[in-house]
Parts: sequence; C-alpha cells; structure tokens
Amino acid sequence: MSKLGGTSPKEHADVSTIIGFETHDVRFPTSTTLDGSDAMNPDPDYSAAYLRLVTDADDGHEGHGFVFTIGRGNDVEVAAITALREHLLGREVEPVLDALGAFWRELVYDSQLRWLGPEKGVMHMAIGAVVNALWDLKAKRAGLPLWRLLATMTPEELVELVDFRYLSDVLTPDDALTILRRAEPGREARIEALLAAGYPAYTTTPGWLGYSDEKLDRLCREAVADGFTQVKLKVGGHVEDDVRRLAIARNAVGPDIRIAVDANQRWDVAEAIDWMSRLAPYDIAWIEEPTSPDDILGHAAIARGVAPIPVATGEHMANRIMFKQFLQADALQVLQIDSTRVAGVNENITILLLAAKFGVPVCPHAGGVGLCEAVQHLSMFDFIAVSGSEDGRMIEFVDHLHEHFVEPVEIVAGRYRAPVAPGGGSEMLATSIAEFTFRGAGA
Amino acid sequence: MSKLGGTSPKEHADVSTIIGFETHDVRFPTSTTLDGSDAMNPDPDYSAAYLRLVTDADDGHEGHGFVFTIGRGNDVEVAAITALREHLLGREVEPVLDALGAFWRELVYDSQLRWLGPEKGVMHMAIGAVVNALWDLKAKRAGLPLWRLLATMTPEELVELVDFRYLSDVLTPDDALTILRRAEPGREARIEALLAAGYPAYTTTPGWLGYSDEKLDRLCREAVADGFTQVKLKVGGHVEDDVRRLAIARNAVGPDIRIAVDANQRWDVAEAIDWMSRLAPYDIAWIEEPTSPDDILGHAAIARGVAPIPVATGEHMANRIMFKQFLQADALQVLQIDSTRVAGVNENITILLLAAKFGVPVCPHAGGVGLCEAVQHLSMFDFIAVSGSEDGRMIEFVDHLHEHFVEPVEIVAGRYRAPVAPGGGSEMLATSIAEFTFRGAGA
Repeated sequence: MSKLGGTSPKEHADVSTIIGFETHDVRFPTSTTLDGSDAMNPDPDYSAAYLRLVTDADDGHEGHGFVFTIGRGNDVEVAAITALREHLLGREVEPVLDALGAFWRELVYDSQLRWLGPEKGVMHMAIGAVVNALWDLKAKRAGLPLWRLLATMTPEELVELVDFRYLSDVLTPDDALTILRRAEPGREARIEALLAAGYPAYTTTPGWLGYSDEKLDRLCREAVADGFTQVKLKVGGHVEDDVRRLAIARNAVGPDIRIAVDANQRWDVAEAIDWMSRLAPYDIAWIEEPTSPDDILGHAAIARGVAPIPVATGEHMANRIMFKQFLQADALQVLQIDSTRVAGVNENITILLLAAKFGVPVCPHAGGVGLCEAVQHLSMFDFIAVSGSEDGRMIEFVDHLHEHFVEPVEIVAGRYRAPVAPGGGSEMLATSIAEFTFRGAGA
Repeated sequence: MSKLGGTSPKEHADVSTIIGFETHDVRFPTSTTLDGSDAMNPDPDYSAAYLRLVTDADDGHEGHGFVFTIGRGNDVEVAAITALREHLLGREVEPVLDALGAFWRELVYDSQLRWLGPEKGVMHMAIGAVVNALWDLKAKRAGLPLWRLLATMTPEELVELVDFRYLSDVLTPDDALTILRRAEPGREARIEALLAAGYPAYTTTPGWLGYSDEKLDRLCREAVADGFTQVKLKVGGHVEDDVRRLAIARNAVGPDIRIAVDANQRWDVAEAIDWMSRLAPYDIAWIEEPTSPDDILGHAAIARGVAPIPVATGEHMANRIMFKQFLQADALQVLQIDSTRVAGVNENITILLLAAKFGVPVCPHAGGVGLCEAVQHLSMFDFIAVSGSEDGRMIEFVDHLHEHFVEPVEIVAGRYRAPVAPGGGSEMLATSIAEFTFRGAGA
C-alpha cells in the first residue's frame, strides 16, 4: 500500500466507480498490559472495525475509515459496515464526494437501517466509518490533509454538510453561517500559526487504573518533562485509592500542571457529587464521564453539585441531538467529540457548530486505535474555521498503537504537529491489518 | 415444534445445560402492501432477528426471543445476538433462570460489548432477545404465561430483577418496594378480572399513510364495529393530507371514539407545535413521537406547546435512563414501552416502575412482528402487580402477521384476551421461520 502514503496526488479520472468495499476485523491484544484499563473497562482489547474503499480511478487513492471498539463485538460492527455496502459498491464516486451532506442524509435516513438506532450505537458508528472513509478519499484526491481541505471550504459549503433536522430549536442554517463567517477573517494567519506551533495536547498515558503507584509517579514526571501541561487520571474504582493516586500525581507534576479525572460512567448522581468532594482538594481540571452518557439531567445536576469543577463528556454520546441537549441544559462545560462514535466528519462538524453556538470549548477524546490520528483534523479545523480559538482547548493523547498507521501523529513539546500528508489520518498499515486480523477467540 | 405449544409442562431435570443457541434472519415482505407505512418508514419489511435456545433437559422446553426490525440490517441484529452466544452456550441453565437480574447485569455490563452502545441500539436490543428467550423458557418451565409468572413473584423478588444504576436519583430499591407492595392487595381479584374481561386494546390498522381515503374510512368503521374505543392515524407527510384524513376518520368513528395520531419522529420542535395546532380541532387523544426519540428537552417543549393534548413516546427510546429523564422533564404524558427495543423483560419492569413512580400510564407499542404477542404480558403484569390499574392504559393492536406465532393474540370486543399458554408469547412457528428465512436481496 505504499502508493497510498505519497503526498503528491495523481490526477484521477473525471468519472470513477467504487469497485472495492473491503472490511477487516482488526484487534490488538492490549488487555495483556492493562493499557487502557479504567473503572468500567478493566480489560479492553483495542480494536478497529475497518473499511477500505477502492475506486477504478487511475490515481491509486483509496478511502479508509474505521470504528474503534474494545474487542468483543468488533465483528458486529464489521457486519454493520457491511450492511452499508449496497449504498457504495458500484457507485460513481464523484457525485458522492461532491455532495457529502446529501450522502450523509442518504445513509442516516435509510429508513430500514435507521430502525436499528435511530442514529445511535452500532449502526450509527458504521455510518461514521463509511463517511470518514469518503472524506479520507476526498482529501487524498485534493492533495490535502483533511483539516486543511475543510479549511478551504466556504461557510456555505460547510453548512451544506450539516443536517439541521432536530436541531432547529437551537441551531439554524443562519446561525451556522453566522458562526462560520465570524471565523473567516484570520483563517490564513491561524493556518500559519498551526503549521508553526501545532495544537495543544494533554496526556492520559500516566493515569490508567491498572498501573502501580510507582508507574503513575514516573509517568506523571515524564509527562511534565515531555512538555504536557495537563495529565488525566482514571478514577472511580475505590475513593481511597483515588485520593492516594491524586496525591501522588499532584506531588509529581507540581501545582501548575492541570490534572483532569475520568470516571468512565461509574457513578450515579449523588455518588458523583460526594466522590468529587473528596478529590476537589487536588485542584481538578475537569471531571469526565461522571455518569451515564445518556443522562443529560443527571449531568446537569452533577455540574451544579461539583461546581466550579467543570464536567466533561462526549466520547460515548450517541449523536448531535444528545450534544444539543447537554449544551441546552448546561450539563457539560467541556465538550469531547470522538471521531468514530457519531456518524463521521459531517456530524462532528455539526457538533463543533453547536459548541461554538454555546461558547463551550471542545477537547476531543482520543487514544484507542487511530483516534488521535483521526480527531486531530477536527480540532485543527475548529481552530481555523469554527471557534477560531485554542483557548481552553486540547486534544487527548495516549501513546500507544500509533505505529500501525501510515501517518502516525507527532507530538512535540506537548502539542500535536499539524499533519501535512493528504487524507484523514485513518489509514492503517496493510501489514498491521494483516497481522492483527482477528481469527476467532481460540486463535 | 408442536411439543412446545402444550400447556402441561413436563418435569425438567434438576440440572440442565444450554446446548442450542440458534439464530434466524426472518423477513416478511410487507413493503409490497404498504402495511406499516408511515412518515419515516415508507416501505418496511417486517422482520425478526430470532433466537431459539435449546437445553438438554427432558422437558422439551425451549426459550424463544427476537428483535423486531423493518428489514435491511436484520442480519446485523442477528450478528449481535450471536455475539452473546458465549454467555449461554454450554452453560448450566438453572442458576441463570434463578437469578435473571444478575444475568441481565452480566450481559449489559460485558465491558467490551458495552462499548458498542452503551445500552442502546443493535447490541442492547440483542441482549433483549436473549433475556426474553430466557423468560420464555422460565415461564414454560413454570407452566405459566409470563404475565402470570411475574404476578406470582414477591416485591422483593421483582426488585432483584431491576438494575438501579443510573436511576437512584429518581427510583431506589425502597421506592420500588413501596410501589410493588402498594399493589399487592387485590392481585388475585385483578387476575380474575383480567381472565374474565381481558385488557384494553386500540387499533392502528386503519391509519397507515399508504392507505387510500376509502380504505381509511372503511377500516375506521370496522374498528368501531369490532369494539375498539381508540384508533390511531399516522401523520406527518403533508399537513393538508392529515387534516383531510382526520376529518374522514372523525366522521367515520363519531365523537366518542378516541383518535390518536403518530408522527413517527417527523418534526422539529416548532414544526410539531404548529402542525398539531392544525390537527387539534379533531379532538386528538395523543400525539405520538412528534420528534427525535432522543430529544427529551424537545419533547418537553412540545408537550408545553400542544397541551392539553398529551405527548406519547417510547417505542424508540433506547433504555431506562432515557425513560427516567422523559418522566423527570414531564416530556411525555403517555409512556410507550416496546418488548424488543430495550434489554428485555427486566428493563421493561424497571420502566413500568418508573412510570408508576410518576403516575404516568403505560400504553405499549405493538404491531410489527410478534410485538403484540410479547408485550401484552408486560401490560397485564403491570395491571396485576405494579400500577394496579387499567385507567388510561391500552395496548396497541395491529392485525397482521399473528398467524406466524404459536400463540397468536386474541382480541375480543376491542380487548386482548389474557393468554393462558405457558411462555412469553415470543415463539414463532417453525414453518414460518423456515418459509421466511432471508436468503439475500436477490432471493
């Protein structure tokens, strides 16, 4: 697949057809090291339900997308992606790429498939993989990294990508245009700044629940030495353990580094407020996923109860309609998008617009498999063309599995370098796909 | 499979093992007749992702469960059910049946599978099929219809079935016990009443969008003649059509029959309120699914805007956490459970308790494939042991596809007859499964 990694796109035919719709069940045995262990996910096997789109154009470009899962059920996600094959295989690709807003609606409003959600869970994430693969292909054809392709689009073109159904009580096309036009001045200057200095990151590498106190201490110190200004710790197992671990971490990083905590949905409302009162003395940057990602009213109550500590959530939020309500209810103060939970780039642009409408900073969830590689494009686009700001914004970084991607992220002095290779970042190495293709529980 | 339809259960061995976990992709080509056509689902092919559990007990009893879908993607749902096989195949069955609350938690909190929701969509519905199949088996072994088996359980045993995680801000185990104990007196009298008179039904048979005005008129008159006191019409295509169809229906049924309308998620908030102002003159019993089933705050705004017309919803609501919030926000006044959308009998009992806590009537969604057969047990159990009331409560009835079930529902004078055969009602005829097993789009 080396032909895909190049940065000088060839011409593609004016008319080409999707001739390959190839799925892979890729699973990495991460549970053996407890990387990624938290209060709700003790033994994840980081996995990708992976899609490769091939066309008959002579440019050699392919579109790659995936859904991140944590092991069992990755085959179910592959089946869901496969259920979308008839929308793409044999289809002329240029009209699809030229109208990705319309195509998003075609997939999301396939009425029979919609019954399986609607707009949530396995089927919605599968649509995300397809949509992201098409954006990857479009960016490669344009010879641009995805963030930069999006940053070349006019406010009108961007609004066409958004589905406003179920949002119009909060966000209209006119609202979206106003937000995007407000950020038009300065796009070029911000592109230059981004290329020069990158985008802020924070690291979750030190904080997994499965790590020893010694390892936590060491990794916290390394994070500071590496230039990170925020670390994140998993909490929610036992409160005394959390207090001890936070004391270790605060001691290791000193008073000026931000420490966020993440409960991974472990608590009920009252429990979250009580527990956080024990952790508050350690100067907490945010409490992430205190309870069920579906509980808008619960998060709102928790936010009132733990103030001034901000509540962060979003990585498990099913769709734009949930994000809308969390913002309406002031149930989150830090919004966390995920590149493979909702229906792809289009829906994430919608969520960025909702966040901008409410003036709430977006700090994406990343880590997993390829989430850093994919989601960085969305934050960088947000900086260039939506919020126009880096203030209070940063992308999660976890240092594993990057070596499996054609264009792994680069972190320098605690910041993501802006990717320059064409595409959406979602292409895995063919050798990694082959090596880690799942061959059954007994394999 | 005739051995399964009997009403005199044989003894089963004290220890038995699940030796069969057999799935079927069953699809009925209903789109050819426009039965089931509505504003969001123009051409459904009513389908079931079907599960048959077999044990090595000598009693011959099996457990049957399914997820209702509307066609494409039924294979994805089958794949999700299959992903649960390792939790059951080869497992001793009695400990599972004796602790179905614990088993529910085992499935729902399988951390790797939970990532695919959490607790929503394809994976959560698959858990529902498994849980319902186990209840079907348990009821057959007990020689009782499911509603009656549940009605024999003590408040304490019923509370054990409920998972209170994420609910404790609204419903605690003590709250649930209070509700159930309040309904203990009179259980026997209500069982007698139910066996004598059945449970109220309403019919959606007349109201599909694809039907002609003449057919609408005729079916409305037939519904009244058949003893129904409420009919339901699909709306949301074109407002002038809806006004005309409501005039026809109101003329056909007269002033004393209730007419509910169902928009199947077609509208945004303001649109719903405007549209309903046009339909209000026809004396509307409720407006069902005016907008996205995820939009709690949107439904609350619509409820305020269309009052005193009640808002009804629930058939697409993902889980108990969403129901909790709809009740907290007064976003629905009629709560509609569905037997195959949430994670089975246990979660529906939880939702019945939530509804009882708020004093909101439950009027289940039914129709589809086998939904009437399955959900009637839950409403009847609610009447006997939870709300203790039929007031304002009725089960949807649609008159198709019942002939494919071993124990088809019986409607007499607009009421469901209480089923007396052992089981949960979810067993499809083996001949129907064989005849309608899907063999690919070209078949």
